[in-house]
Formats: sequence, C-alpha cells, structure tokens
Amino acid sequence: MIARVLAAELAAHIGERVRVAGWVHRGRELKSVTFVIVRDRSGLTQVVTAGPAPAQETVVEVTGLVTANSKAPGGVELVEPVIAVLGEAVAAPPFDLYRPVVPATLPTILDGAPVSLRHPALRAQFEIAAASVAGFRSALDAIGCTEIHTPKIVGSATESGANVFGIDYFGRRAFLAQSPQFFKQSMVGVFERVYEVGPVFRAEPHDTARHLAQYTSLDAEIGFITDDRDVMSVLRHAIAGMVSSAASRVEAVSLLGARLPEVPAEIPVIHFAEAQKLLGGKDEIDLSPADERWLSAWAARELGSEFLFVSGFPMAKRPFYTHPQPGNPKYSNSFDLLFRGLELVTGGQRLHRHADYLAALAERGESPEAYRSYLDVFAHGMPPHGGFAIGLERWTARLLGVANIRQTTLFPRDIHRLTP
Amino acid sequence: MIARVLAAELAAHIGERVRVAGWVHRGRELKSVTFVIVRDRSGLTQVVTAGPAPAQETVVEVTGLVTANSKAPGGVELVEPVIAVLGEAVAAPPFDLYRPVVPATLPTILDGAPVSLRHPALRAQFEIAAASVAGFRSALDAIGCTEIHTPKIVGSATESGANVFGIDYFGRRAFLAQSPQFFKQSMVGVFERVYEVGPVFRAEPHDTARHLAQYTSLDAEIGFITDDRDVMSVLRHAIAGMVSSAASRVEAVSLLGARLPEVPAEIPVIHFAEAQKLLGGKDEIDLSPADERWLSAWAARELGSEFLFVSGFPMAKRPFYTHPQPGNPKYSNSFDLLFRGLELVTGGQRLHRHADYLAALAERGESPEAYRSYLDVFAHGMPPHGGFAIGLERWTARLLGVANIRQTTLFPRDIHRLTP
Repeated sequence: MIARVLAAELAAHIGERVRVAGWVHRGRELKSVTFVIVRDRSGLTQVVTAGPAPAQETVVEVTGLVTANSKAPGGVELVEPVIAVLGEAVAAPPFDLYRPVVPATLPTILDGAPVSLRHPALRAQFEIAAASVAGFRSALDAIGCTEIHTPKIVGSATESGANVFGIDYFGRRAFLAQSPQFFKQSMVGVFERVYEVGPVFRAEPHDTARHLAQYTSLDAEIGFITDDRDVMSVLRHAIAGMVSSAASRVEAVSLLGARLPEVPAEIPVIHFAEAQKLLGGKDEIDLSPADERWLSAWAARELGSEFLFVSGFPMAKRPFYTHPQPGNPKYSNSFDLLFRGLELVTGGQRLHRHADYLAALAERGESPEAYRSYLDVFAHGMPPHGGFAIGLERWTARLLGVANIRQTTLFPRDIHRLTP
Repeated sequence: MIARVLAAELAAHIGERVRVAGWVHRGRELKSVTFVIVRDRSGLTQVVTAGPAPAQETVVEVTGLVTANSKAPGGVELVEPVIAVLGEAVAAPPFDLYRPVVPATLPTILDGAPVSLRHPALRAQFEIAAASVAGFRSALDAIGCTEIHTPKIVGSATESGANVFGIDYFGRRAFLAQSPQFFKQSMVGVFERVYEVGPVFRAEPHDTARHLAQYTSLDAEIGFITDDRDVMSVLRHAIAGMVSSAASRVEAVSLLGARLPEVPAEIPVIHFAEAQKLLGGKDEIDLSPADERWLSAWAARELGSEFLFVSGFPMAKRPFYTHPQPGNPKYSNSFDLLFRGLELVTGGQRLHRHADYLAALAERGESPEAYRSYLDVFAHGMPPHGGFAIGLERWTARLLGVANIRQTTLFPRDIHRLTP
C-alpha cells in the first residue's frame, strides 16, 4: 500500500505516484478536463481527471502522479489519477464550502455545524483556539502549576443563586457548577498553583452575543502571592503563552488574516478610581461597555498597548471572597483585563483567612452554613492566593475579531439552541 | 524582599539566609529545641527553633540560614529562623498529614478531601494523573490531532437511555452527556484527528469501586484509518506517552513506590474467539471480570506484556455505531485493552456510511429520528474512522495499584456523595 501523503507535503514528491485522501472540496468540469479539489487537514490538492467530479464532500482516496503546476494550489497537482470513494455524500452541504467568504448566515452555519465547520476559514478559528489552550497550559506548566479536574455537579449553587442549572441527582437536587472557583482555591492548599481547562455552565436567560449556557473556562489559582499584582503577572505570562502559541499556527493565522497582539512585558495598570477620573470624573461602581471601549482605546493610543488592567474594582461589584484593598476597603485587590475594547478576564486576590470569610459573609447578610464545605478549607491554613478565569470562546472571538462567540464555539448552547 | 526558595532548591543555598514558605507539616518540641517541618509543593524543610511549634497546617513564612545537616530532609535545615504566620489553622486536620502511611479510612479521606489531599502520598497520585494527561495530549498533538471542547448538555440521551442525568434546560428537558462520542466522530469530518479531555456523566446507581457519576474521559477519534488496528496503534502511542510522562515525575513515582509498566512496541492482540478458546472453550458474548484477570495474567506470563488487546468483540455487546468485522459480522472491529487484570480502554472502528447507520438502527429496531442530528453528519461524507476513551481516574488507579477510583478522584461524585 502506498502511504498517504498530505496536501501540504505534496511538493516534496514531484515525479512520484502518491496517495492522497480527503473530501471533494470542489469539482469543476470544463469542456475537456475536470478539476477535483481534494481537501485534507493540511490543505488542498488539485486532481486533474477526465471523468465527472464526485459530489461535494464525498470522501475520496486518489492515487496519482505529482506534477508541478504553478497555477495549482501549492504549485503541484495530481495527474493520471485513480479515484476511489471512501465515503459517499448523499446530501449537499448547507453552503458551498469552497467559497473564500462563508456564504451563509450564522443560524445556517450553526444548524449545520458538523459540516459548516469544514469550511477552512471556520475550521481555522478552532485551530487557533486549540493552540491558545495549549499555550495557556504550557505557560502555567512552566511555573510549576498542576492541572486539576473538578466536579461539574455541585450540591449548592454557591457563587450566585441565579443563572444556575438544576439537576435531578439520584432524587436529590443538585446543580451544574458555574465555575471551579471554590475547588481551585481549595486545591491551592494542596498544589500551591493549579489550573483547570473545563466547561462551566450558566443558565443565561438573555440572548446576547457575549454569553452562552456552556463555555470553556481557563482557570488558574496561585498561592503565596503578595497581592493581586502577582496574579496580574501570572495572567500576563499566560496570555503571552496563548498569543505565542496561536502565532505558531501560521497557516490558520494567515488564512484568517488575523492580527495578533503584542503582549507588553508589563501590561499597563490603571486603578479604577483613576479610570473614573479619565472617564470624565465619574463615580460609578462598575465599568459600562462604553467605558471599556474608551479605556481600551485610550490605552492603545496613549500607552501603545492593546491590553489594559483596571485594578482596584469596587468591592460592591465583586464576590464576597474578594480581598479588599488594604487601607481602602471600598476598593478591592481585583482587576479586569481589557483587550480590544472589551473585558476579557476577571481576576484578583481572594480572602485566605477563615475569620475574614466569616466577617465578609456576615457583612453581606449571608449565612455561613450555605458555604460550609468551602469555608472549612480556610480553617486549615491557606496562603494568600489569587487567580483568574479566561473564557476560551470570548478569547478566540476577540483575538480574531469575531463579533459573536457562537462563531468560536463548536456547538453553542443557549436559551434557544440545544442541537446539534 | 528575599525571594522565596522552594524546599527542593535549598541545598544550593547553604550558608545563605533565605525565605521559605509553606504549611507546618509537623512540629516536634524536644527539651531544648523545636523542629518545625515546613511543607511546600516541592518537599519538606526542617526549621530549627527554640519557641513552640505553630499548629499543624498553619501557613508560615520562614527566613533563616541554610545549614547542612545530613539527618534533615534533603540534607539541609534552616537555623536562626524568623517565623511569620501567613494563614492560621483554626481546626485540626482530619488526620496527621505527616505519617508516611495515611492513617484514615476512605470516607474520612474523602469527607476532608481539601485537607486530606495535602498528604504527600495522596497529592502525588494527582501529580501522576496530571502528568498522564499531559502525556496523552502531547502524544496526540505529535500525530496531528486537534483538541476540541464539546457540549456537556445534550438534547437527547442517545448513547443509552439509562444512567443519564436530566437537566431543566430553560424549561425544556435536556441531559448531561455520557460521552463526547457523537461530537468527536462528527469533528473527524472537520479536523480528521481530534481529542478531548473532559468530564462525562453517568447516573450510575450502583456503589462500586469502579464507577462514578462524573469522571474525566480522555477521548480520541481518528479519521482515514484502514481498520481498528490503526486505532490500536494510536492508542498504544497515547499510552506510551502517558507512561513516559508519568515516569518523568520522579519524586512522585518514588514516593508512591509505583512500578510503571513497559509499553511494548506492539501490544499483543488476541481475537475474542481465540480468547474464548483459551478460557476453556467458552462461548460468551462478553468477558467477565474473572476472564479479564485470567487473560491479563496469561499475557503477562506467556507474552511478557502487562497490556493485552482483545479484538473482535461480539457485535451483540457493542453500540450500534460499531463497525462489524468484514466477513464475520457476528464480531466487530472493536477491542478492549486489558491492563493488569482489568479492562482499561474500549475502542474500535465506527460505521462511516450513512446507509450503514440506517441499517444498523433498523436491525436494532431503533428509530433514526432520535439520532437525526448525529446521522446527518454521515450524509455529508465521512472517512473510515475510529477511536477510544480512557477513564483518567481508572487509569491512575491501575497505574498506582489503587483499589478504588474514589482515591484517584479529587472530589468524587457518586450516588451517596455530592460534597465536598
């Protein structure tokens, strides 16, 4: 048997008979000749034949002679081919996959996702996503983090009562985890530095371009920090790893025409109170989407950075486990990372003392009983720690300039969509 | 500020004043001197002081002079220390974490998991698990796989109606995915070769040592195979990567006294029918646990391999998407991988033609309607493909000789256990 050769490797085989395999990307029957373009995971192969072209998306195996042709994709084509069908296509794809610009609306793309995503420009987005995750992990591995896998089924909806999916758990009420927050914090007590890449679930009732019922969260939590500046430093390191790994997918980046950002050695930081002044003397407790856009544009213009940390977010807008800013407890040791006009990451330092947790819950009028198994962890000695969570689909969308995160999710789940 | 030094690095700093930080693993107050053993993620540091020892699990920062002492852990100790408390321990750990053998029963360990897992021998298991996953991914990256993230919320309980968790999904009925089977198959149409590391859910009503309500599945699916032998070859490659990566955690392997297996260049394969003969002329359609043990011992004894593929499993015991064995459709192109007496992995070739799926469902008396979005994929041209799934917790348990997979799960979920 002749071993299979990928499209991208063909140019090294001119003059040889080789076997390629893939999908019929396009067939063009001219008067005297037929061009069959075969797509595999590495690219396209032009096959020159006399017969009719198989239907689009038929899976074929082609044995033929590799010949130079400067007008063919990759500068080579296969002539004198023998074409065998490995898998019939008995239905037409939802749109022509060979058109450079996807000729379909978002609902059409999503309804036919398993086939739509075969379009090279759609597939390339997920290659960038996969590379980003690999970069995240290798950056964190390099600083001694341990990867963990935590429960997605939890006994109480601790992080926020709303937006949580209920499950029938052997006759008991349970919930889908909205984040691995409590687990990753507790695992700082075991491994000091941890990360998790996994699904999180939000019963998000609003149909927006930014929210999904399930997304992939890249979570990290780091012990023995001084304060949130150490967390920002680890986040900067992770982001740099993600960008650099994405950049290594040269073909995908080029196909998408993606402009990847520079990650400054130190991402500029502005305190929330300073940001309010810059925004014209505001006195809000949160940033509006317009504020995020303005601050992001300001950082790009004035500081030459597409990334901007806004630190010291008001405690009023942060969860109870957030560490207040020493000396000014109106603010917190927590931050948002803005990227190209949007909040990309939220992170910060957490409380680490048992008594501080009890006080924080009391101040918010919440019962410690609901958080008992979480609070127990802090009764057993925990170091100062903090972390962050990056939404993978949002990251990929921002990186590639895609407006709706459904486009950077293989099979999005939202209030309307439960299939495919 | 003096930068923090890890326990494992101390020997390189003899004669220097350094700062270490960690948990009080043990305090021993003798007549004239107190030894405080501080545990960090790299190991133990002996601190020699005059005062009382802080309570077990107190988080401390110690600045002291590194001095050689052949009787101390790592051959060095810290003298003239200044000890500062970073995080108080206000409750005692569930058991003494410093005892070499964990002095607690499984329920005690699991009830106090966030603290129990600080025990070096328990933590080391999860370092091996993390290394195994890293090895799985790098082996598959090396052969051109793309990592995917698929929905854990699905619209129909396709794989098997039983053992599925129901969710209230915005007022509709939905389910937790029992496997990424259908998604990973469909993504072969996009990426040719994919893998996913993620949670899967089984409403397992039996309280066994081998089953959990959630576990971490290492899934792979590979297109353009000839048959299941190619799948076995990829699985062998992945397993070799996992073992080799686990072996790189020298400290953890040594602490656990783990004997890691040799992965043969070719793992021996025995056909199910042959296995029946070896088992004394049986004519069953599945292997019993006793059969698995016998065959595994036979392979170790006769073939010198701790791994054994049993191929050609009867179709009667395999899901409808399994590819039958050409020429003998009583059997299938699917296999189990036995390891140290137990089934570790199931895998095989899948059907890839639309008509074959329709026929397979009709033969089982099932309606294609329930599988519509899955079947659609095969109407659009799919290559011959196959794959496998490795349960991470079961893998780690087998590798380390642990009897119950709850011990190799950070926070196990079963019919009784929903916390911590």
